[in-house]
Amino acid sequence: MIKAGIVGATGYAGGELVRILYAHKEVEIKWLYSKSYEGQTYSDIYRNMSSMADVKLVSGDLGELSKEVDVIFTATPQGYLASVLNEEILKNSKVIDLSADFRIKDVKTYEKWYGIEHKSPQFIGEAVYGLCEKNREDIRYARLIANPGCYPTCSFLSIYPAAAEHIIDVNTIIIDAKSGTSGAGRGAKVNNLYCEVNENIKAYGLPNHRHTPEIEEQISYASGESVLLNFSPHLVPMNRGILVTAYASLNQKSDGSYYSEDEIREIYEKYYNKEKFVRVLKKGVCPETRWVEGSNFTDVNILVDDRTHRLIMMGALDNIVKGAAGQAVQNMNIMFGFKEEEGLEMPPVFP
Amino acid sequence: MIKAGIVGATGYAGGELVRILYAHKEVEIKWLYSKSYEGQTYSDIYRNMSSMADVKLVSGDLGELSKEVDVIFTATPQGYLASVLNEEILKNSKVIDLSADFRIKDVKTYEKWYGIEHKSPQFIGEAVYGLCEKNREDIRYARLIANPGCYPTCSFLSIYPAAAEHIIDVNTIIIDAKSGTSGAGRGAKVNNLYCEVNENIKAYGLPNHRHTPEIEEQISYASGESVLLNFSPHLVPMNRGILVTAYASLNQKSDGSYYSEDEIREIYEKYYNKEKFVRVLKKGVCPETRWVEGSNFTDVNILVDDRTHRLIMMGALDNIVKGAAGQAVQNMNIMFGFKEEEGLEMPPVFP
Amino acid sequence: MIKAGIVGATGYAGGELVRILYAHKEVEIKWLYSKSYEGQTYSDIYRNMSSMADVKLVSGDLGELSKEVDVIFTATPQGYLASVLNEEILKNSKVIDLSADFRIKDVKTYEKWYGIEHKSPQFIGEAVYGLCEKNREDIRYARLIANPGCYPTCSFLSIYPAAAEHIIDVNTIIIDAKSGTSGAGRGAKVNNLYCEVNENIKAYGLPNHRHTPEIEEQISYASGESVLLNFSPHLVPMNRGILVTAYASLNQKSDGSYYSEDEIREIYEKYYNKEKFVRVLKKGVCPETRWVEGSNFTDVNILVDDRTHRLIMMGALDNIVKGAAGQAVQNMNIMFGFKEEEGLEMPPVFP
Amino acid sequence: MIKAGIVGATGYAGGELVRILYAHKEVEIKWLYSKSYEGQTYSDIYRNMSSMADVKLVSGDLGELSKEVDVIFTATPQGYLASVLNEEILKNSKVIDLSADFRIKDVKTYEKWYGIEHKSPQFIGEAVYGLCEKNREDIRYARLIANPGCYPTCSFLSIYPAAAEHIIDVNTIIIDAKSGTSGAGRGAKVNNLYCEVNENIKAYGLPNHRHTPEIEEQISYASGESVLLNFSPHLVPMNRGILVTAYASLNQKSDGSYYSEDEIREIYEKYYNKEKFVRVLKKGVCPETRWVEGSNFTDVNILVDDRTHRLIMMGALDNIVKGAAGQAVQNMNIMFGFKEEEGLEMPPVFP
Repeated sequence: MIKAGIVGATGYAGGELVRILYAHKEVEIKWLYSKSYEGQTYSDIYRNMSSMADVKLVSGDLGELSKEVDVIFTATPQGYLASVLNEEILKNSKVIDLSADFRIKDVKTYEKWYGIEHKSPQFIGEAVYGLCEKNREDIRYARLIANPGCYPTCSFLSIYPAAAEHIIDVNTIIIDAKSGTSGAGRGAKVNNLYCEVNENIKAYGLPNHRHTPEIEEQISYASGESVLLNFSPHLVPMNRGILVTAYASLNQKSDGSYYSEDEIREIYEKYYNKEKFVRVLKKGVCPETRWVEGSNFTDVNILVDDRTHRLIMMGALDNIVKGAAGQAVQNMNIMFGFKEEEGLEMPPVFP
Repeated sequence: MIKAGIVGATGYAGGELVRILYAHKEVEIKWLYSKSYEGQTYSDIYRNMSSMADVKLVSGDLGELSKEVDVIFTATPQGYLASVLNEEILKNSKVIDLSADFRIKDVKTYEKWYGIEHKSPQFIGEAVYGLCEKNREDIRYARLIANPGCYPTCSFLSIYPAAAEHIIDVNTIIIDAKSGTSGAGRGAKVNNLYCEVNENIKAYGLPNHRHTPEIEEQISYASGESVLLNFSPHLVPMNRGILVTAYASLNQKSDGSYYSEDEIREIYEKYYNKEKFVRVLKKGVCPETRWVEGSNFTDVNILVDDRTHRLIMMGALDNIVKGAAGQAVQNMNIMFGFKEEEGLEMPPVFP
Repeated sequence: MIKAGIVGATGYAGGELVRILYAHKEVEIKWLYSKSYEGQTYSDIYRNMSSMADVKLVSGDLGELSKEVDVIFTATPQGYLASVLNEEILKNSKVIDLSADFRIKDVKTYEKWYGIEHKSPQFIGEAVYGLCEKNREDIRYARLIANPGCYPTCSFLSIYPAAAEHIIDVNTIIIDAKSGTSGAGRGAKVNNLYCEVNENIKAYGLPNHRHTPEIEEQISYASGESVLLNFSPHLVPMNRGILVTAYASLNQKSDGSYYSEDEIREIYEKYYNKEKFVRVLKKGVCPETRWVEGSNFTDVNILVDDRTHRLIMMGALDNIVKGAAGQAVQNMNIMFGFKEEEGLEMPPVFP
Repeated sequence: MIKAGIVGATGYAGGELVRILYAHKEVEIKWLYSKSYEGQTYSDIYRNMSSMADVKLVSGDLGELSKEVDVIFTATPQGYLASVLNEEILKNSKVIDLSADFRIKDVKTYEKWYGIEHKSPQFIGEAVYGLCEKNREDIRYARLIANPGCYPTCSFLSIYPAAAEHIIDVNTIIIDAKSGTSGAGRGAKVNNLYCEVNENIKAYGLPNHRHTPEIEEQISYASGESVLLNFSPHLVPMNRGILVTAYASLNQKSDGSYYSEDEIREIYEKYYNKEKFVRVLKKGVCPETRWVEGSNFTDVNILVDDRTHRLIMMGALDNIVKGAAGQAVQNMNIMFGFKEEEGLEMPPVFP
């Protein structure tokens, strides 16, 4: 039984961490940290956790608090962890960061896309990008995990085998992504009001959304090529879920022919058949967010368009589970040698 | 480890039974029964269960199938179980019926409100009304459980202490209830299409909805008085959840005074403080369906209006968990001597 | 062609005034007033009005601005108009106030329920309560209209004939109302975020919502009796629409019998058959908000429960049309002698 | 005042035709045709039209009925009009077909993509593709209009100037489209039930949706090149609205440079500045469906990604107004010499 602390427990990802960890057999939540709600009872804010997480929210020095726990989750705005992290904290406890602070290896790229100075670049090197299905071995021994973004997780898992096996021209990748509204966070903004989001769909952040360099970097690692791509997120009137529809031109084989859909599906199945949390759907079946809601699954599939010789790569996940809190717990399970799926076996909730 | 069969596994309540039982430690699902989808793979229809319930749906003689299991759940239309039930089935396995067939003790009342002949009235007598918080002891030894309706469960738990303690005049009760759309089932009807339900609220079935006599019967048992009341259901554009707002005139005490809100809340807390699945909210906090979604909880609270001397009784539950599949599993747990909350401890999912 | 100014043009009711008045043949919008958005282009905020209302928002002294217009609409928070209104403004232009400032005749009641001091009680006396179907004659000659609240309009039109004809015991009235989220306004509050409202239904403001005394006052006028009643609003995950389900005990006639449903429907039809904007539905048909959305209609109907001798009175309207901006324009049409339905003939939008 | 008949008046597009034509000053609706609802009162089905369209639905021989009207709208399944159209009908009245029967000039392409035999290919030649902004002159003299599909209208208006001016390589076009659920029609199908659509987003019909050849044909005409493209529709949990996000590689100019965003926006503005119903948004502003809902507007805009040298073309419209009934009425206005915007000037409804 290890002890965990959660910073930013009153955001949607933080709330999901509480929900998942509460039912986790190997973890006890030691403290929940929130500056804005300090002193209030957690379950008065997230009333789903009434009779379960009836604890007071704390605030204070993270160095001190780190002594009480084995692992800290930071579900915080960009820049927070980089501004407080130090060697002492990392000696006291492992840290799993759900923000973007340690995801991008090149500090200049981070600073350019996020528009803030990175306050502790000295930790970027050791931080492991916590895409479990890709970096499982490194995660095992990490002190600091950069938990992947929701869009990058979904995009990467959808594209990974095709990029790694050079099935596609990675510089033709176009990712058209759609997300539920919980991804926008719990801040009180007019743009996120019910009447502004409901009965609407819109693109946002085009063509320079901050998740772009994170996706490019990971696809580059996978393919061994430098990658520039288009990433276009859209806001969908629903609570949870990300759907990725990605397009790329098929590479021709040496004999000039193209990969068939069956060949590519076989490769996807080979990549993921040991992965508990990635389900390659049956031929012709498109992923839908409703089938993964509330769970840690990512459903993926591909289609080949024989007319245009393009590959369509599709993925669906729950943005606050596999796209945030669930993957964070999966990382924790790997780091502490627990069963990787512990606390994450809840089936998707439908309808 | 007992074995279970589910008839009607492809309806929303049936699907929820599969979701819950899959994660239940004491139960193995032996067969899933569906006439309309016989021969198909369950997880091709409910794709949330992919990689979990990849089994073929069966059909056939329930007598034969009952030999393979310890308990049968029937999540079927009204009249089905009454038309097939026999002594042999009940000898082979326990039966938990999610339809209304055995809920109402007076067969004439059943036939009048449901408009169908009851085909096996001989079993009505022994059937136990599976409102766990009320009839726990009888459930323990039952062969046949009449699992309560979703509206009646929410209505009863909201009103029960006030009725049993004669705090209110039970013949002034007005229940204004609101339900998510999963309560309307998975049948292909124009009225339940997305564009017909979305951006709309309506009352339906007024003033003679079929749940009325079920609620009246249970409130009568609780209060010891014959009860006529108004029950008005409304359809809300959301997937899950029932909210009950019930009104009744306060009885005067012998000294002519009225019960105060604090006195009544104390009584509610006394009734429910040992109940894992009923949460009496803090003073002044109204139940909301979002805080129970996906869970087996019912949140209740009361308010007193000192101007009109009426008691407002409120309750919220998830109609396909505590209002159907969850309560059915709770009943099973009691019947087989399992921990009552086994398989039902998932916290509500928010947002 | 008269000239109109709108204060609070960037709220949802203000936005609806712009939408309606833009298409109104007898009115030209002279200025749009907004403190928070002053200097911005209206159609940059409400982009539905692009290529139509591409005008700058103004701010400043209402006395000066009143010289430029024939009518001012104030779609503003409670207390605003009372704090700025003066004789000069009323001499320059008619005023139609969409807030509650001049709706309640007794200033003490206003101050108690709204918790603010009334800054210009001297105008309460002359203010006409702008429920067009009831007070048409007084509206014609008014300088100052207190435009009714959304809930009160729907409640009153649903109950009015039954109360006026003494069909019901008005002190048994219970109003259970349900509203779309636009009624909560466009303020940036966590409670109104998409993820907080979606997939949820809740009661709020019980048992003392501010619309209670307004409804009681109007039902009192209609019935000639002092009235205390219960009013319980609920928040529904949809943009627009209010549904009222009201209950009351039927009075017995002098011979001890009860009014029949047909008799009462006849009375309702008599009251409303000349009213363009009130539709008495066919027998047994319940009002639904989707059938009035975007229009100035109120759909009403009644049901009698012969078992409990209660009358169920139902109404549906669009809270920002007939419940706010539409009724305000209807009042304007009456005040200026235009055709009462001018600018208000748009059919409801479905789906 | 001309007379109109509507076949398929009880579908969503048919309902919208009724709503629009009811308020149209130059048209009287003579009959509403529906096989499934024959003999019923229209406003009992579409209750928004109560007190307005209280007429009986008819059925019967279209040849006979065509004698009573000047124009017939067919909002019917694919194949219907082709199977009944004849010279007599076209002599009696103009026909505006909202189905795909006469949109595609090559009958083989039609039969391949739609999987049905075309029963009256002899009329394909004279049919005018009713994309008003493109084919206004031909529409004026047509007897038979093939009213464009919802997706093709939105796609075409988004891409048209870029394709016509050879700014993009038209064979790199990828159209990722998102639609509200009314586009799926009013048929009673499990897939379109509220609980199946709500809280979900999915792609469907990939990679061979039937609107693909229609879009390719029109882009070919505009660009003068043969075009193969990807078109990927998605289903969004909302009633109305289509959003198109289209991608294409920029052509280099003769000097090797790329078109800038400003240059391309200027071209778009030139193409559309006289078009009442196409609004080119301000620089950097992305179209959103909420800003066009209930109206005949299409909002378009473009973005240039300087990193990938791709053009992102975006458009939003209401699928049952500009994407169906509204454009049909716009065509009618052109054919009969009415003001083009007559009956179509309703501003978008928000929220």
